[in-house]
Amino acid sequence: MAELALVLLLVGLVPTGAVWPQPQLVRESPGRCRLSPGRFRFGYARSSAVGPGCAVLDQAFRRYWRLLRDAGPRAPEDTRPWEPLCAELLVSVATPHCDGFPNMDSVESYKLSTSEDLSLLSSESVWGALRGLETFSQLVWRDEDGMFYLNKTDIVDFPRFAHRGLLLDTSRHYLPLRAILETLDVMAYNKFNVFHWHIVDDPSFPYESAAFPELSRKGAYNPATHVYTLNDVKLVIEYARLRGIRVISEFDTPGHTLSWGPGHWTLCSVACDFILLLSLACRRSNPEIQAFMQQMGFGQDYAKLESFYIQRLLDIISSYGKGYVVWQEVFDNGVKVKPDTIIHVWRENAGPYQQEVARVTKAGYRALLSAPWYLNRISYGQDWQTAYQVEPLEFEGSLEQKELVIGGEACMWGEYVDVTNLTPRLWPRAGAIAERLWSNKTVTDLQDAYIRLADFRCTLLRRGIQAQPLFTGYCDAEYSGF
Amino acid sequence: MAELALVLLLVGLVPTGAVWPQPQLVRESPGRCRLSPGRFRFGYARSSAVGPGCAVLDQAFRRYWRLLRDAGPRAPEDTRPWEPLCAELLVSVATPHCDGFPNMDSVESYKLSTSEDLSLLSSESVWGALRGLETFSQLVWRDEDGMFYLNKTDIVDFPRFAHRGLLLDTSRHYLPLRAILETLDVMAYNKFNVFHWHIVDDPSFPYESAAFPELSRKGAYNPATHVYTLNDVKLVIEYARLRGIRVISEFDTPGHTLSWGPGHWTLCSVACDFILLLSLACRRSNPEIQAFMQQMGFGQDYAKLESFYIQRLLDIISSYGKGYVVWQEVFDNGVKVKPDTIIHVWRENAGPYQQEVARVTKAGYRALLSAPWYLNRISYGQDWQTAYQVEPLEFEGSLEQKELVIGGEACMWGEYVDVTNLTPRLWPRAGAIAERLWSNKTVTDLQDAYIRLADFRCTLLRRGIQAQPLFTGYCDAEYSGF
Repeated sequence: MAELALVLLLVGLVPTGAVWPQPQLVRESPGRCRLSPGRFRFGYARSSAVGPGCAVLDQAFRRYWRLLRDAGPRAPEDTRPWEPLCAELLVSVATPHCDGFPNMDSVESYKLSTSEDLSLLSSESVWGALRGLETFSQLVWRDEDGMFYLNKTDIVDFPRFAHRGLLLDTSRHYLPLRAILETLDVMAYNKFNVFHWHIVDDPSFPYESAAFPELSRKGAYNPATHVYTLNDVKLVIEYARLRGIRVISEFDTPGHTLSWGPGHWTLCSVACDFILLLSLACRRSNPEIQAFMQQMGFGQDYAKLESFYIQRLLDIISSYGKGYVVWQEVFDNGVKVKPDTIIHVWRENAGPYQQEVARVTKAGYRALLSAPWYLNRISYGQDWQTAYQVEPLEFEGSLEQKELVIGGEACMWGEYVDVTNLTPRLWPRAGAIAERLWSNKTVTDLQDAYIRLADFRCTLLRRGIQAQPLFTGYCDAEYSGF
Repeated sequence: MAELALVLLLVGLVPTGAVWPQPQLVRESPGRCRLSPGRFRFGYARSSAVGPGCAVLDQAFRRYWRLLRDAGPRAPEDTRPWEPLCAELLVSVATPHCDGFPNMDSVESYKLSTSEDLSLLSSESVWGALRGLETFSQLVWRDEDGMFYLNKTDIVDFPRFAHRGLLLDTSRHYLPLRAILETLDVMAYNKFNVFHWHIVDDPSFPYESAAFPELSRKGAYNPATHVYTLNDVKLVIEYARLRGIRVISEFDTPGHTLSWGPGHWTLCSVACDFILLLSLACRRSNPEIQAFMQQMGFGQDYAKLESFYIQRLLDIISSYGKGYVVWQEVFDNGVKVKPDTIIHVWRENAGPYQQEVARVTKAGYRALLSAPWYLNRISYGQDWQTAYQVEPLEFEGSLEQKELVIGGEACMWGEYVDVTNLTPRLWPRAGAIAERLWSNKTVTDLQDAYIRLADFRCTLLRRGIQAQPLFTGYCDAEYSGF
């Protein structure tokens, strides 16, 4: 028998046009229009610095139009002629850049104003316009007859943190390309902007390097089927770019990395995985390393060897104009790194992570938070709430220190996760972290979050995403991909 | 960064033709034949009491032949002509019954002997033949070139426990019919023989009753889409029968149940869900109930009312020739029940469940174990091992008491489970319980179980089942349904 839980079931109380993550400012006014997908259009405002031909927005218009069209069965379009029709959404972007990549300094703010004849979305950059389009798509709601409506609404929105990432691990289990692309779709629905691709690690090396093909030939689970080619990686980067997402490809650094040469570092920026510490330990018995350490005057001080290695690696990366992120051990072990290094705080077991964030920022480094957001760790019940209740700036430190927290990442490590359970385990749980990193600090009401997140999960199902339920209940359109 | 786990990766060490759950006796001899699906046939032995026209076996032959055919890409059939070809599997069933339903006393034992010219499967009943066919299908293995082989093997097999069940909850979340049918398929792969269908409960009433249509019209999440018709239920029962699985449909008994009349109890046997206790509590304020209690001479003793209710319910069920299972509270509350009642032990929080099993069997009732097997409860890591390490007879009691433990059930309650996450959460975790209930008491080696279960999970992927991984690694044929 199932244990009794006396819970207020809130299904059905969702306000029309709820948005996840919650925008910074939402003002609804009386009035609404009916949105007929067949007669609605997305377009560029005359004032816009970008126009047709801007791939990022051209393609986004098509994607969001299709999401409207495929949002489920609906009533015939010609009924209710007395209701005003929503005509179009015009987008106005202030800066003319279209073909670049999003970066740490990208401006993602936007303003959205919907009304019957014309809805207007204005933003500084195309990336902000992408965020606004997602918000717009969530404002559209359906009545019981399947009619689409849009309430008159004004929104001013911007992210609280610049770095809002999600980590996938393709080494412990290989993930097919399609699963990665779908994840990028859902990341965009959640306004995530960094895909941290932990592409290789100890268990397998799925990256098919043109310069060092033996790495995947010997290291992949199956070099014919369980690999990512250079073209696959390029595809992921472009697919992500079109959704305003940066890709950080992380290459683990086992002993033979120094021999790779810099050929591959040009692809994307690099986070150094400090499995390296282990590698180094293995090297102690290596006479070449011993000789090298004597030659460099390191004596038996392995910390100096590690510092040397990392400095050299970061130099190489810098020379390609790329930034870098290191896992917290590099900082913990006192390795000398450049002042602009980003320290990724991940440990939960070595004292509260808040103390680590305090230490890192006190030393003047930028911090990225993942410790409380290991989504691969599952527990029974609504564990999204634990992730949601994290406040990244809740640590002892000055205002300057708080400003050094650039954001965080949800992590989905692959020990127990492959394509069979990735999507339901990620969504909507990662959404809790997406809202924490995007929305205002004051957005903390769990009950309100439950209502909106449960509704957002139904939206994900309508969009074909196999997102698991938060709790007992149902969606009008259940998952149809089964 | 992912925490380091120094684990021996055992992938690749799987013995050819490993079977899950482990048969009672397996003897391999030198010698093997090559199995070419196109030239292999399943058939009835001359000695068999059943033959062509026996739907249970006719259809099973087709299913297992298709599983062979669809087991993945393979080398051209005409290569390696020097190797002996496996010719056919003949089945001999001793008793001539074909059209009945499996029941508590069904004999599921079988003997299987494979060799190059002829493999023979003999059993007392068609149900035993089904178990043997599944075993046969798992004995077939593939070499690196995709060739199928069958080692010369003799197997004597029978279940340790008669009742090996799985519970699905279709009230907290509706599960589409296809998900239920797929679950029955995978149950058969695991030699489960009871599908406990917790069809209705407080959150929703998806059963579309012909006599009381208002129950689902008002009680289903959506009476158009979230319901099971009588035909659906019949289909499930027949689909299960063809796989040697009994269906126990459980109808929750809220206050208005007495008014249903016995019209629906003919479908299947009934387990009384003691949400009833709550119902009864609600009734205290009901003047009709008060009057009835006075009339019956119960005074204010609600336990007497409860006993009366349950006795009457069980009488009705008995009159239809059906057995019944009650949740342990009925026993715990001292309600008088018939001596042949089966008590379902589910509580984990009121002292160790072993004590409850001891009490139930000491009182002479048969016990069914679920307390340690709530698969809806998840935790991080390889939690299948916890379920696997349960020994159902490990409680203080006489030999007679031990014989009263008829088996157990894996439970998948639906608070956090719907069609999006059901399959990966069930499989292969429920397999741990399947083996505990089928295999010999001595089959307890975790490392051996890991190897076989990981291999069985790869088999499930080949059969199109979205079963999640046990740990880091891969399968030759990954899940293709994504």
